[in-house]
Amino acid sequence: MRSVSIIGIGQTPVGELWDCSARQLAYQAISGALADAQVEQVDALFVGNMLSGSLLDQEHLGTLVADFCGLHGIEAAKVEAACASGAAALRVGTMAVASGFHDLVVVAGLEKMTDTVGKDTTAGLATAADAEYEALHGVSFVGLNALIMQRYMYEHAVPLDAFAGFSLNAHRNGVHNPNAMFRDPISLEHYLKAPVIATPINILDSSPVCDGAAAVVLAPTAWAQRLTGGHHRGAVQILASASANDTLAVHDRRDPLVLEAARISSQKALRQANLRIDDLDLFELHDAFTIMAALSLEASGFARRGEGWRMAQQNEIGIDGRLPISTMGGLKSRGHPVGATGVYQIVECVQQLTGCAGANQVSQARLAMAQNIGGSGATVVTHILGS
Amino acid sequence: MRSVSIIGIGQTPVGELWDCSARQLAYQAISGALADAQVEQVDALFVGNMLSGSLLDQEHLGTLVADFCGLHGIEAAKVEAACASGAAALRVGTMAVASGFHDLVVVAGLEKMTDTVGKDTTAGLATAADAEYEALHGVSFVGLNALIMQRYMYEHAVPLDAFAGFSLNAHRNGVHNPNAMFRDPISLEHYLKAPVIATPINILDSSPVCDGAAAVVLAPTAWAQRLTGGHHRGAVQILASASANDTLAVHDRRDPLVLEAARISSQKALRQANLRIDDLDLFELHDAFTIMAALSLEASGFARRGEGWRMAQQNEIGIDGRLPISTMGGLKSRGHPVGATGVYQIVECVQQLTGCAGANQVSQARLAMAQNIGGSGATVVTHILGS
Repeated sequence: MRSVSIIGIGQTPVGELWDCSARQLAYQAISGALADAQVEQVDALFVGNMLSGSLLDQEHLGTLVADFCGLHGIEAAKVEAACASGAAALRVGTMAVASGFHDLVVVAGLEKMTDTVGKDTTAGLATAADAEYEALHGVSFVGLNALIMQRYMYEHAVPLDAFAGFSLNAHRNGVHNPNAMFRDPISLEHYLKAPVIATPINILDSSPVCDGAAAVVLAPTAWAQRLTGGHHRGAVQILASASANDTLAVHDRRDPLVLEAARISSQKALRQANLRIDDLDLFELHDAFTIMAALSLEASGFARRGEGWRMAQQNEIGIDGRLPISTMGGLKSRGHPVGATGVYQIVECVQQLTGCAGANQVSQARLAMAQNIGGSGATVVTHILGS
Repeated sequence: MRSVSIIGIGQTPVGELWDCSARQLAYQAISGALADAQVEQVDALFVGNMLSGSLLDQEHLGTLVADFCGLHGIEAAKVEAACASGAAALRVGTMAVASGFHDLVVVAGLEKMTDTVGKDTTAGLATAADAEYEALHGVSFVGLNALIMQRYMYEHAVPLDAFAGFSLNAHRNGVHNPNAMFRDPISLEHYLKAPVIATPINILDSSPVCDGAAAVVLAPTAWAQRLTGGHHRGAVQILASASANDTLAVHDRRDPLVLEAARISSQKALRQANLRIDDLDLFELHDAFTIMAALSLEASGFARRGEGWRMAQQNEIGIDGRLPISTMGGLKSRGHPVGATGVYQIVECVQQLTGCAGANQVSQARLAMAQNIGGSGATVVTHILGS
């Protein structure tokens, strides 16, 4: 199998971008990534997206985006795995280059969640859950996460403010990310007074509904040196790419407090990269809700069951901490345009690994892990990147 | 790159299957394919599907189907490229095995178009077109094909009955396919009297709205011999797999009567397989409308521009003809559950290449081409299989 590297990145600011349509967002991210990689044409485009069918009445998104970006005659497809669509698309792009079917591939993550006329975004997000056994009964996506968080607090006997550290860290890091949706720091007092949206989840536990697109250009690692030779930034190698699933419905899990798919995909990824968990310099995790940050840390092996929240409370997750997470603001502060998030995480890892993370630079970052979660842990895709 | 083979196939009957949900259809096809391959566990599942978000309020379909089939802990994702979703998913599965990321992969095509409460199937199908520049103005998907057919009849000065041969051939072959939706032969008189649904397209030019699922199991060719050693049927090798795109909107094409993406992907596929077009023994093409059959034959190089219809009129497309097409009924008679169609085509090629096509067996079939079209020619995926 050919080794694959990332030779260019692009992203739009994340937010409620009422003046930008889906195709325009994709164009901004993709043209940015192509310019960054200093290439004009590619062999394939894979678009990670969850909601274009439900919210925009638009399928066939791969070819739509390729067409709008002037990428004619190439392969194009959309890849969907709920909120893990971005990383799932990166998996496909990686396999396309690794197999030798293609040399240059663009992977874009894209989601347009605002300005969707006559559509219900909450119902759209619930399509990540089981339509017949969860959503039909009125459980929303935040509701499912609230049930998990409630159970966590009960079983591990932790108070609500145990989760505050995740939100404070994310907002602290978002301040310096020009592409983040929320750039104001928050205090513990803000967190404690935040309106509850589904008990016990408050609005500062939860990532926002928003729009955004991010893109990366992939090439064989053997080419990357030459392609980025005259470039301000080196290529970043994809050391591991792994995906695993779990039951779709939370009620079918043996233990709803263990993200089994995160455990499997992390272990697979570490084995592929031949690394131990302590080797990693940072972890872009899927903090769609603070409870997911805690569970992701635990399942991936950074903390024991029931103790993920301690890493936030003891501030081990800051830029200078033992394991920096959400270094550019994470889903909470940078924002969570769902199908795009997995690619934003990768773009931010590349920024860190090439010394381009500005005020949020993790010192001597060489190895980064990114983990993108679909549904309430039903699909988990883990990548490890190295500079 | 590792060579990839198909070691098992499964399919459901196609029809208005009111007593079967999407997950049940998928289970039938996948369990059939696993049993046929004599394997119980696989490394990944890729589901080709177009409309689950729009019509079923269900995304995250890859993991939903994997979960329902008891395939836990594996990679799962949905691949979408409008009506070419099935073949696009096969592309991804092929890359997964070719790259070495996975050894055993199931690719399923799945569509549930009936029994969709409160949803508009015609509007769902229009999501294959450009929502902002085509569908918004009221053009339906059949409407777009009608415009193309009208132009073809005008420019090439052919009468309506020039297309009848495609429909007659499809229905003739569907009679002997137990999985076909329509198993009654039709006559020229039926065709000429068929109700028009969008001038000049009549109901016998057009494939039906229906449900269905089909699946194949992939493995490295080097393993296939061992895996199918004690088996009633040999493995079939994927000799070529290629995809190309064109402008999404028909009005953006230089020549709306040339399927440029079909031309590119066919040529790519022939180059990959190191074959000439005359080497092929049969062609499962995308006869969603009779006009698409004509254009596909022309773009792929079997007929000159404006002359594809002659192959039908001169009966060169029958089972014993120069180039058998739609050998198990095609989209017209077997049915067109959109995201599943590309996988049905592959399953039928495998039946032909392994001598399991019953009364429709193409004599001494060794090489088969399958072509799956998304939108009005905007995405075209071409595979060549060999026994």
